[in-house]
Amino acid sequence: MSGQGGGAGEEDRVRQFTEFRKRMNERILAEPNQVVRRFFALDTQTYQAGALDVKTKELLGLVASMVLRCDDCISYHVAQCREAGVNRDEMFEAFSVGLVVGGSIVIPHLRRAVDFLDTLESGGAASPSAHDHG
Amino acid sequence: MSGQGGGAGEEDRVRQFTEFRKRMNERILAEPNQVVRRFFALDTQTYQAGALDVKTKELLGLVASMVLRCDDCISYHVAQCREAGVNRDEMFEAFSVGLVVGGSIVIPHLRRAVDFLDTLESGGAASPSAHDHG
Amino acid sequence: MSGQGGGAGEEDRVRQFTEFRKRMNERILAEPNQVVRRFFALDTQTYQAGALDVKTKELLGLVASMVLRCDDCISYHVAQCREAGVNRDEMFEAFSVGLVVGGSIVIPHLRRAVDFLDTLESGGAASPSAHDHG
Amino acid sequence: MSGQGGGAGEEDRVRQFTEFRKRMNERILAEPNQVVRRFFALDTQTYQAGALDVKTKELLGLVASMVLRCDDCISYHVAQCREAGVNRDEMFEAFSVGLVVGGSIVIPHLRRAVDFLDTLESGGAASPSAHDHG
Amino acid sequence: MSGQGGGAGEEDRVRQFTEFRKRMNERILAEPNQVVRRFFALDTQTYQAGALDVKTKELLGLVASMVLRCDDCISYHVAQCREAGVNRDEMFEAFSVGLVVGGSIVIPHLRRAVDFLDTLESGGAASPSAHDHG
Amino acid sequence: MSGQGGGAGEEDRVRQFTEFRKRMNERILAEPNQVVRRFFALDTQTYQAGALDVKTKELLGLVASMVLRCDDCISYHVAQCREAGVNRDEMFEAFSVGLVVGGSIVIPHLRRAVDFLDTLESGGAASPSAHDHG
Repeated sequence: MSGQGGGAGEEDRVRQFTEFRKRMNERILAEPNQVVRRFFALDTQTYQAGALDVKTKELLGLVASMVLRCDDCISYHVAQCREAGVNRDEMFEAFSVGLVVGGSIVIPHLRRAVDFLDTLESGGAASPSAHDHG
Repeated sequence: MSGQGGGAGEEDRVRQFTEFRKRMNERILAEPNQVVRRFFALDTQTYQAGALDVKTKELLGLVASMVLRCDDCISYHVAQCREAGVNRDEMFEAFSVGLVVGGSIVIPHLRRAVDFLDTLESGGAASPSAHDHG
Repeated sequence: MSGQGGGAGEEDRVRQFTEFRKRMNERILAEPNQVVRRFFALDTQTYQAGALDVKTKELLGLVASMVLRCDDCISYHVAQCREAGVNRDEMFEAFSVGLVVGGSIVIPHLRRAVDFLDTLESGGAASPSAHDHG
Repeated sequence: MSGQGGGAGEEDRVRQFTEFRKRMNERILAEPNQVVRRFFALDTQTYQAGALDVKTKELLGLVASMVLRCDDCISYHVAQCREAGVNRDEMFEAFSVGLVVGGSIVIPHLRRAVDFLDTLESGGAASPSAHDHG
Repeated sequence: MSGQGGGAGEEDRVRQFTEFRKRMNERILAEPNQVVRRFFALDTQTYQAGALDVKTKELLGLVASMVLRCDDCISYHVAQCREAGVNRDEMFEAFSVGLVVGGSIVIPHLRRAVDFLDTLESGGAASPSAHDHG
Repeated sequence: MSGQGGGAGEEDRVRQFTEFRKRMNERILAEPNQVVRRFFALDTQTYQAGALDVKTKELLGLVASMVLRCDDCISYHVAQCREAGVNRDEMFEAFSVGLVVGGSIVIPHLRRAVDFLDTLESGGAASPSAHDHG
């Protein structure tokens, strides 16, 4: 059980997690492993505008994260989608694709995704300021 | 690491999680997204008695959740199985199928499932009163 | 090994598969199992235009299928994407998201997806005429 | 694409696959690797009658195989379920649990499962005579 | 979101988790389910020296755990790898294989793996003293 | 069902598959999608000797492919492992780790892996001459 609770504690946890992610990403990129560093660079490049716009690409990242059931990745792409202008109805349509493709096993992640989206919409968490890797 | 601890803290976490699940399910079903709402209705219908009885269907849901390694879903179906009359030996036989099919990667989820089952059996957590989606 | 070969044999296999899918879908929907039938109806509804357009939704279905590594689903959504106006560059950008999120394990499926796309573009396979479930 | 076609070719393929499985299992068990051999023995033991009967355990194996999307395992457990007395309506209820938990990504496997069940019911394929590992 | 924070709290959580794992493993092995008990014995046997040495086998367990994205299993094998003499550069090369094969969905688990490795290297957590199952 | 048969037909299928892989890799790399091309380059770089030798890295790729259950990737790494000097006993120990971590759902892939290894050992299939992506 994940025991996620929402409310003020939720905001703290979002802040704590954002700091953890930032700190560990810096630590990982400071390692002399070129494959890992290149993978991180490629990950950033993947979501840049090209033939598809950023909004569409972030939605793709969101649904991929839902069906693979990674809470951190889902939260990250929910925040990025909001930054890219995805509104709540569009977000739920993306959620619905993830739910139908991935099945009921996705439901606990959907609950946490909606809780996180609510926290973002109530202003309780700053969006990540730059692409920092799921 | 999931840092699950058991004991009195475990009971609190079960209660907190049950409330979170209930609150978020209500919030999700209040959204105007018909696909999501229909999926939730279908999920409830899936476990109703038919050619197979409720006990068998909940066992199927439990093993599916184990091999897909979703702690919330496992806890949910463990509680539903108990409600449907599955005893401890039957529960462990279902666990054994999940473990052999899914492999040692299932072990951490098995530990948490057994901890949750112990909490239920010691009366420390109310079972969910109605089917509320994994 | 999947032993996919391409060329004229590829066109035959696409035709054979399309017929198999159509025949089995009809057979499944003729069964008196209401949950299965409702799931199929919900699957069709998921990709209809709403807050997101059909093109975006089919791209979401495509990337979800890639990271979950289901060849039949990938072929199906590649065909649907083409119907919805996705061009080759956009298709490859969707592929790139699936590849980076899902990792090198996706590569064999990417090869078959590109082979199938080539067959479609050379006119060797009719697109499915209606949504018929992955 | 899996290009499964059904009919007489289907019966041949079932026979060919059954022989392949038998031959390779013997070859694997002839290797001096004790972990692999013990795993195979454990796999056989898992489905023997205990607190749960064989029919229930085979249904558990079937649904686990569906949500993990392994065609060979699904075919195997469909055959074992039939041997254990599971009728067509019960089989479809097990399919429905696998479909709802696992999502639309399961649909291509469901089509092949139903095709295989049809082949079995028309007498076109002998059931495996003993537990031989998925 | 997993809200892992690092620092002194991290050491406490590692200790708490190690105790939980030990206690639950004992509880599981005390059950009269022979399949589960044999699976645990087989799991221990798997990583013993044979044609491949312990170091290589623990690296195999680590990468398998990464691509299957199980934090507890990753932590466990990171600790076992260190015990077997794997240095930091070797660990990161194993991480890089897991990352490239498994894709960006592995990144959140990589962050937690590196955080756990840092805790181990700073002496903040005792390694498990015997093989105790992921 | 995968209907893999072995024997002379197996050698043909290996040759056909190797040609398909080579042709499609060239086709994919000829596309103007830089993310996809960089991912392929990174995939090649991942398995080059570094802190860990090529043999160990190919074993890591093999076990990762087994637990993720990708036949093409397994075949590819089995061939690369042989090139790197992995003998049959070592290969089966790697298989045993994949089997125990991934569970019985891996068994059908193990059968095909052993069949492919037998074909390689009987000289029936040329190993890939360079790293060409799973």
